[in-house]
Amino acid sequence: MELEKFSGTVSAVLTPSANFEEGVGMTVDFHLKNGVNGFFVLGTNGEGVRIGPEKRKRVAEVFTNYVGSKGLVIVHTGAADLDTVRDLTKHASRVGADAVAVIFPFYYKYDLESLVSFYNEVVQASDLPVLAYSNPSTQGYRVPGRTVEALLEKVPGLRGIKDSSNDPELLLSLSRRFSSHFIASGGDELILYSLTVGIRRQVSAIASVYPDLVSELRRAFVSGDMEKALTLQSKVNNVKSILTEAGPYHAAFKHASKLRGVDLGGPYPPSRSLTPEEAESLTRKLLSIEKT
Amino acid sequence: MELEKFSGTVSAVLTPSANFEEGVGMTVDFHLKNGVNGFFVLGTNGEGVRIGPEKRKRVAEVFTNYVGSKGLVIVHTGAADLDTVRDLTKHASRVGADAVAVIFPFYYKYDLESLVSFYNEVVQASDLPVLAYSNPSTQGYRVPGRTVEALLEKVPGLRGIKDSSNDPELLLSLSRRFSSHFIASGGDELILYSLTVGIRRQVSAIASVYPDLVSELRRAFVSGDMEKALTLQSKVNNVKSILTEAGPYHAAFKHASKLRGVDLGGPYPPSRSLTPEEAESLTRKLLSIEKT
Amino acid sequence: MELEKFSGTVSAVLTPSANFEEGVGMTVDFHLKNGVNGFFVLGTNGEGVRIGPEKRKRVAEVFTNYVGSKGLVIVHTGAADLDTVRDLTKHASRVGADAVAVIFPFYYKYDLESLVSFYNEVVQASDLPVLAYSNPSTQGYRVPGRTVEALLEKVPGLRGIKDSSNDPELLLSLSRRFSSHFIASGGDELILYSLTVGIRRQVSAIASVYPDLVSELRRAFVSGDMEKALTLQSKVNNVKSILTEAGPYHAAFKHASKLRGVDLGGPYPPSRSLTPEEAESLTRKLLSIEKT
Amino acid sequence: MELEKFSGTVSAVLTPSANFEEGVGMTVDFHLKNGVNGFFVLGTNGEGVRIGPEKRKRVAEVFTNYVGSKGLVIVHTGAADLDTVRDLTKHASRVGADAVAVIFPFYYKYDLESLVSFYNEVVQASDLPVLAYSNPSTQGYRVPGRTVEALLEKVPGLRGIKDSSNDPELLLSLSRRFSSHFIASGGDELILYSLTVGIRRQVSAIASVYPDLVSELRRAFVSGDMEKALTLQSKVNNVKSILTEAGPYHAAFKHASKLRGVDLGGPYPPSRSLTPEEAESLTRKLLSIEKT
Repeated sequence: MELEKFSGTVSAVLTPSANFEEGVGMTVDFHLKNGVNGFFVLGTNGEGVRIGPEKRKRVAEVFTNYVGSKGLVIVHTGAADLDTVRDLTKHASRVGADAVAVIFPFYYKYDLESLVSFYNEVVQASDLPVLAYSNPSTQGYRVPGRTVEALLEKVPGLRGIKDSSNDPELLLSLSRRFSSHFIASGGDELILYSLTVGIRRQVSAIASVYPDLVSELRRAFVSGDMEKALTLQSKVNNVKSILTEAGPYHAAFKHASKLRGVDLGGPYPPSRSLTPEEAESLTRKLLSIEKT
Repeated sequence: MELEKFSGTVSAVLTPSANFEEGVGMTVDFHLKNGVNGFFVLGTNGEGVRIGPEKRKRVAEVFTNYVGSKGLVIVHTGAADLDTVRDLTKHASRVGADAVAVIFPFYYKYDLESLVSFYNEVVQASDLPVLAYSNPSTQGYRVPGRTVEALLEKVPGLRGIKDSSNDPELLLSLSRRFSSHFIASGGDELILYSLTVGIRRQVSAIASVYPDLVSELRRAFVSGDMEKALTLQSKVNNVKSILTEAGPYHAAFKHASKLRGVDLGGPYPPSRSLTPEEAESLTRKLLSIEKT
Repeated sequence: MELEKFSGTVSAVLTPSANFEEGVGMTVDFHLKNGVNGFFVLGTNGEGVRIGPEKRKRVAEVFTNYVGSKGLVIVHTGAADLDTVRDLTKHASRVGADAVAVIFPFYYKYDLESLVSFYNEVVQASDLPVLAYSNPSTQGYRVPGRTVEALLEKVPGLRGIKDSSNDPELLLSLSRRFSSHFIASGGDELILYSLTVGIRRQVSAIASVYPDLVSELRRAFVSGDMEKALTLQSKVNNVKSILTEAGPYHAAFKHASKLRGVDLGGPYPPSRSLTPEEAESLTRKLLSIEKT
Repeated sequence: MELEKFSGTVSAVLTPSANFEEGVGMTVDFHLKNGVNGFFVLGTNGEGVRIGPEKRKRVAEVFTNYVGSKGLVIVHTGAADLDTVRDLTKHASRVGADAVAVIFPFYYKYDLESLVSFYNEVVQASDLPVLAYSNPSTQGYRVPGRTVEALLEKVPGLRGIKDSSNDPELLLSLSRRFSSHFIASGGDELILYSLTVGIRRQVSAIASVYPDLVSELRRAFVSGDMEKALTLQSKVNNVKSILTEAGPYHAAFKHASKLRGVDLGGPYPPSRSLTPEEAESLTRKLLSIEKT
C-alpha cells in the first residue's frame, strides 16, 4: 500500500517467537478481522532491536509477504550502527515492504548535525520511503521538538516520523507544519489527542493485542461521538497500565495476546517470561477490564 | 596475558577510522612506551557499538594480533541482541583475545533474572573469560549495586565486571566481596578512589590519549606519594572536563590523540567531527593544561 | 465567587514587586477586560514560595479585595512546613479568598499516607475549600496518577486539584472519575486537550500575560471552531517556548507583561532580571509572534 | 568554637519531636561520649525545612545553649524565601551559634548570578560565618561543580560549603582550590574518600545515630590503618542502605536512634512513622549488622 495514502491505526505488532509463519498469519488475520490494516513490524513493541539481524530479516519477509496488498507494512530497521541499518533497510526493500522506519541512533547520543548525516545515509541506501522514529525511553535521549523539526527540514528525503516522545506540543506542531509528511503518533495515551490535532496515523502498542478497541476508538472520533471516544481512550489507558505493571513488558503483551486467542510464544531472550503468579494476576485484571 | 594475573591501568583505547592497521600499531606502541599494557578494545570509548559487526571483528583481530603477548586484550563484544553478542564473542576467541567484556543488554531494560539468563548464554557461548560491563549512561538504565552483586553470585561463569556506574559504594563493596573476581573500575574521576579501596585494575578513557598521565598517577599511589597522586587525579579530572565539553565526545578524544602524535582519524559515523572553532578551542585548552 | 460554580480560564497571575497596590489593580483590570475572571494567586507563576510569609499575606489580601465579587480568587498557601501552610491558609480565609490551593509538600518527598495526613491537617485548619496542587518540576517529585486519585478519595475534605504534571492520562481520568470535584489542568500545552476531555477549568501561566489569547482559545473550542482552537493552541505553545527560553522564567514573564502595558516590576529576589540583550531579544520575538 | 579551627566529624543531628529539651541533651551527650563534637543542626537530616520557623528557632537555641563551648554548632537556616532565611540567620546569631549554613534556594532553580545575589544578601544579614550548602536531591537541581566554585569566588563573604552532591571530582577540586575555606563533605558513602583527598570536615547523617562508628572510621584513617578504615566505611554504607530502605527516611533514623538508647520521638509531620512491620524488620537488620 502506498505510504502517503494510508490513514488509520497502525499496530505496533508483536513478533512471534514460536510457530513462526503460523504466528504471523494468526496475528495479521486477527488485526484485519478487527479493523486494523497498518503494521509497524519489528519496532519497540515488536522486539526488533533484540532479535538478531538474520532473524529480523525473516520476520520482515514473512510479515511483508503475508500482508501483501491487504495493508500497509512499515518495517523498523533501526540499529545502533549504520552498517546494520543499511543492511536491514536494503533487505526490507527487496522483500517488498511499503516503508522503513529507523529509530534515532542509540547507545550514544547525537546532536542535530549528526542526526542529519545519519538519516541522509539511510535515505541514500533505501529504495523505500524512510521515516524517522523517536522514542526517548529506549533510544536513551530526548531530542527537543525543534531539533526533530529541523531534522525533517534538513533531510528532504525523510518522508515523515513516528513520534513516541509523548510531547503534545510537538505532535500539534508536526501536524500543522509538516502536513505533506507522514506524521504518526506513538503513544497510546495520546491516540485521541493526536486525532484531535489532525494527525491521521496512530501507531499503537495496545492495538497489537486489542485492535478492535483501538479501531473502535478511532471510529468513535471520526463519527463525532466524543463521549464514546473518551470512554474508549480511558479503557486504552487502563489496559496499558495493567500491561506495563504486570512484569516484563513483552512477556505481558504476549500473555495478553494468547488470552485473546493469538498465541505468539513468549518474549525473545534475554527477557524473562511472566511468573505463574504474574500471569494469573494479569489474566484476572484483563478479564475484569474487558467486561467494562 | 592471563586475565587474573593482570594488574594495572587498562586503556579504553580509541579505534582508528583511517589508516587502519597503521593506526592500531601507532596507538598500541604509544601506550606501551608510556607504561600502559592493558587494552579494552571496542568499548564505549572505542565506539564499538556504532561500528558494524564485520568491521568490529577486524578491529578486534588487528588489536589482538598487534598486542600479542605484550599486554592484555579485553574485547568488548556487547550488542543489543544476543545473536550478535554470541557471534562477536566467538570471533574474539578465535583471534586470540584474552577476555571479552559484554555490556548489560541495552535498548530495553532488564531485571536480575533476565540479566542472569543473558550472561549464562554468553558464558556458554564463550571459550574466553567473560566480564560483565555496566555503564548506565549508555546502556540506558541504572542497575542497583545489589543487583550487580547478585548477578556475579548467580552466574558462576562470570569472571568479573568493569563497573562504570561511578558509584563509590559499589566499588568498595565489589572490591571486598569479590576479591577473586576481576573487578575493574571504569570512571576516570574515581581512579585514585578505586586504588584506595583496593581495586587493582582501572579502565580509563583518559589513558587512551594520556597513558603517561594515568600510569604516573598509578605509580604515585603505589609508591605512597599521595600528594602527587592527588595532583595527578586533579589533572585527569581537568582533562576529562575539557574533552567532554569540547564537542562530540569521540571527535574530541580523537583530536586530542592527534595532538599527541597519534592520528587515528575522526569519529565513526554518524558522529560529526569538531568544527574548526571547536578544534582550535580544544587545542588551546589542552596545550595550556599540559603545561601545568 | 463560589468555587464549584466557576468554569473557565484561571490566570496564574504574576505578583507585582513594585508599586504594589497599583500593580494588582492594573493586572486584574487587564484580565477582566480581556475575558479572564479567575485568579490563581501566589502560585508557581506568582512566585509565592519565594516571597516571605508576611508579604505573601499582603499580596493575598490586596488581590482578594480588588477582585471582590468580580471573579474567583484561589490563593496558593503551600510551603515546605505545615505551620506556615496553616498560617497562610487561615489568613487567606480571613481576607475573604474563595479557596486555597496547597502544593504537595516539597523539599522532602512524601508517600500516600504522609500526603493524606498532610491534607487532612490543612483541611482541618481551613474555613475555605482546599485544593491540592501537583507540580513535579517544582515540588521535586512525581506523584503517580493513582496516588493522586487515592489522595482525593482518602481526604474527603479536599475539594479538588490543580494538576500541572502534564500527564494526559491523569487528566482524562480525573475528569471522568472526579466529576463532582474542582479539577483544573495546569499545563499551557494541554489547554485544548483538557477542554477536549471535559475539564472545565484551565489554570494558565500564559494567561497572566495574554489573557486575551487564552480566553479566545477557550471560546473557539466552546463554539466548535476546532481549526481556530488548534491555531490558538499553537500560538500559546510558541509564546510559552519563547518565554521559557528567554532567561530566568519570571524575569521573562514580567518583561512580557510590561510590553503589554502592565508593568509589575522585576522578579522577586534572588531571581536575577533579564540582561539588556535577553530583554531585547525577547521583545523582538514576542512582537514578531504577535503579528501571526 | 571557632569555625575554621574545627576539624573532624560533624553530625547531621536529628531533631527531637517529643520531650524537647531532654532530647537535645540526650543526643548531644551521646555524641560527645562517642567522640563527635560537631553539630549540624536542622539540616536535611534534622528536618529543619519542614519544621515551622518558630519551632526551628527554639531548636537552634536549645542546641546552641546545650553544646556551649563543648563543640561546634552550625545551624542550618535555609528556606525557600530570603526573608525567612534572613530571619532565621539573625536569630542563630543572637543565640550564639558558631556559624550558619544555607542550602541553595529551592522550589525554583537558580543560575550563578542569582545564587551570587542570594548569598550576598545572606552574608550581609549575618553576624556569623555563612556556609553554602548544596544537596541536589532536596534542593531539586544539580549545580555544576564549576558554578559552585565560581560562587565561592564571587561571594568573598562566604566562608565555605557543605557539599552533599556526591561528586568526587568536585570534592577533590574544592579541597585543593579552597584550602582556606571551610569545606565539608556531606555524603556518608564518601567519608573515607573525602578524608583521602584532604577534606578535614565530614558532615555525616549516620553519625547522628552511630557517632562511635563514624569517629572510629576517622581515627582509623588518621592513624594510617587503611584496612580498618575500609571495613568501617563498608559498615557505614551497609547501615545507610538499611536505613534508607526501611521506610520514610526520618522515621527510620529516629527508630534507630531509639534502639541506641536515645529516644527523640517520631518524625515531624507530615512524614508518617514506620509501620510495626517496618520497625520490626529494621530492628532485626540493625541488630544483625551491629554484630559484624
